[in-house]
Amino acid sequence: VVPATVPAVTSRIQLGVVGAGQLGRMLHQAAIGLGVEILFMADGQSDPAAQVSPNVQIGSAMSAEDLATMATSCDVVSFEHEVVNLEAIARLAEGGAVFRPGSHALGVVADKIGMRTAVEAAGLPVPPWRVIETTAAAVAAMAEWSEVVLKVSRGGYDGRGVFVAEEPDHAVTLASELLSGGARLLAEPRLAFDAELAVVVARRPGGDAVVYDPVTTVQIDGQCRQVSAPATVPASTAADAVEMARSVAEAIDAVGLVAVELFFVGGRLLINELAVRPHNTGHHTIDAAVTSQFENHIRAVLDLPLGAATLRTPATMVNVVGNAAGDDPRDTLAAAAAADPGAHIHLYGKSPRPDRKIGHVTVCDDDPARASVRAWRVVAALRGDVPARIEETLV
Amino acid sequence: VVPATVPAVTSRIQLGVVGAGQLGRMLHQAAIGLGVEILFMADGQSDPAAQVSPNVQIGSAMSAEDLATMATSCDVVSFEHEVVNLEAIARLAEGGAVFRPGSHALGVVADKIGMRTAVEAAGLPVPPWRVIETTAAAVAAMAEWSEVVLKVSRGGYDGRGVFVAEEPDHAVTLASELLSGGARLLAEPRLAFDAELAVVVARRPGGDAVVYDPVTTVQIDGQCRQVSAPATVPASTAADAVEMARSVAEAIDAVGLVAVELFFVGGRLLINELAVRPHNTGHHTIDAAVTSQFENHIRAVLDLPLGAATLRTPATMVNVVGNAAGDDPRDTLAAAAAADPGAHIHLYGKSPRPDRKIGHVTVCDDDPARASVRAWRVVAALRGDVPARIEETLV
Repeated sequence: VVPATVPAVTSRIQLGVVGAGQLGRMLHQAAIGLGVEILFMADGQSDPAAQVSPNVQIGSAMSAEDLATMATSCDVVSFEHEVVNLEAIARLAEGGAVFRPGSHALGVVADKIGMRTAVEAAGLPVPPWRVIETTAAAVAAMAEWSEVVLKVSRGGYDGRGVFVAEEPDHAVTLASELLSGGARLLAEPRLAFDAELAVVVARRPGGDAVVYDPVTTVQIDGQCRQVSAPATVPASTAADAVEMARSVAEAIDAVGLVAVELFFVGGRLLINELAVRPHNTGHHTIDAAVTSQFENHIRAVLDLPLGAATLRTPATMVNVVGNAAGDDPRDTLAAAAAADPGAHIHLYGKSPRPDRKIGHVTVCDDDPARASVRAWRVVAALRGDVPARIEETLV
Repeated sequence: VVPATVPAVTSRIQLGVVGAGQLGRMLHQAAIGLGVEILFMADGQSDPAAQVSPNVQIGSAMSAEDLATMATSCDVVSFEHEVVNLEAIARLAEGGAVFRPGSHALGVVADKIGMRTAVEAAGLPVPPWRVIETTAAAVAAMAEWSEVVLKVSRGGYDGRGVFVAEEPDHAVTLASELLSGGARLLAEPRLAFDAELAVVVARRPGGDAVVYDPVTTVQIDGQCRQVSAPATVPASTAADAVEMARSVAEAIDAVGLVAVELFFVGGRLLINELAVRPHNTGHHTIDAAVTSQFENHIRAVLDLPLGAATLRTPATMVNVVGNAAGDDPRDTLAAAAAADPGAHIHLYGKSPRPDRKIGHVTVCDDDPARASVRAWRVVAALRGDVPARIEETLV
């Protein structure tokens, strides 16, 4: 049951954040500097943000009651993920609760079909795509595009919910399984893109916005693994990406951060994905930009003047993902610190599991190739990969 | 009663920090990135670090029992201030507890007379000075130096416990009052120095150390108010200051950070003060150095390889001290953010009181004069000083 109105209380906490993963953890670091108190909604005390903050509400983003409790305790409620009870958020907002972003922007990005539709409606370019409601439609898509990417419209992340079909039979099997499971699907051609880019925008309620420099991203198995700033694309392409990201943020009336992921293919930019929260493709801004994405998310949702998004230095960020043995990077911190005294190590306090994002490393270096090599070297040390182990014994 | 030995428990917390002021708060920000958990010893839950950390032990740095509790809970115990029970720390260390820095280094810096003696014993230059045990000795110092600075040997900070006598009568009155209060005193001539410098060193247990670039500091009423990095002194002077700071850290066998404050007078460097903890003259390193002093303090006391202390950019830091009205800078955050989108604002969550340090602002700018103007402008906005109020209405 969602209360009809939110009681007018003098809130003790300025900002509530739904979710307490690594994004929340890094929001807390930024909030400390601003003197802003955050209440985190966490699944449990061991969540990355809950480990480091005294203000934790154990609850679920799908629970209308838990969302109402947070809205009552906080002046503004924001999010570090988009798997939330949109209906409850809309109802609470009608009753006076302040959610930033609001249910409209959250709804757009939570559904890939809705997102593509909204971006097209704003006159912005997206890859060729169609909704797939039958196996016959999947076969037709294969006939047209030869290789097809099938995506579930809701709930996918980090490559989950994304499937590539190279043969018609495979497309039929995939579509049949996913549709019978009740998923809505969209299909698009597998694009031989020249690069994947991302742009992060911070936007205040009135529309004031700052845009970070576009970055080049590298995904492995659909998961973001490396981000290089600035993107290695022509200046006019970077300027176009910035304007497209600004337009998207405007079109969906997002407040807070908007991350826009784009394909750069045949000289054109196509908008692939959106998020309305701090994003993996902005982690380098902690160490490489004047104001980090985390600080600007807080400024934006609290309607404070935004900090400069200027890049201070070229930088490369590499994610630390769990190794097969489930080793904890906290145990290899000494080797990683020894591997490069100039690297910025960020660990999330998460239990290591294979392929889980458990940290990241940023290296600021004028030479992008060297930045990348240095960052991967530290990540290898954190993962206990063999070359780093050998180096450790030499230190 | 101090227990004879510390029980060998599997500690849950890697690092204990005695004290939970702004230095602890900024240590927590750095620890989050490293995945290091800190237990803070706080006077109360409203202490700056206790506000932002879930791991707080309410206790006193003078209580042997509280120190023993912390030593039992943590692998390593460090400090953010030096007003501690040295005897208890020495006793607990004999029983196996790990305090970094140890009681020797803490003892040296807690007592100005002992500190001067130790620095001289290491063959390093200090200002002319003497112990004052009688009013006659104060009169003699006046006769020799015409203007005398009288300092209480223990417990002074931020200009407290420091007195300037310009007339013999005043020297007699001061010495008489302070001596009858039981204080040990030292006297030195009031030096017409050309600049005040400071150097921060981070040192591991084995002696590995990194040294930050010397900075120029400006005190107002004995309180540090502005720090500019790098120091505007000849390169050879900067190099000498670095070597002197390194030697001091070695001489007192400090582990963690050592801050060395120096007078630059008539072409000579004289060591004035020492601290063995994060220091106000290193706050700019959060935004302007590759590795902040806070991160390097944690690395040093946990015996991890140190991060690079390299300055990334010239920068100026200005402290935010409470205004006469006791206004809270959290209430003027919007005006401060509007005043300069490139400034780094750091608020400590402290109740504002006149002249209390409640935050700082760092501006990175290649032009030192402009950096200073920009930082003071943001500080004025945070303090609600009139010019900033005018600007705010124009934004």
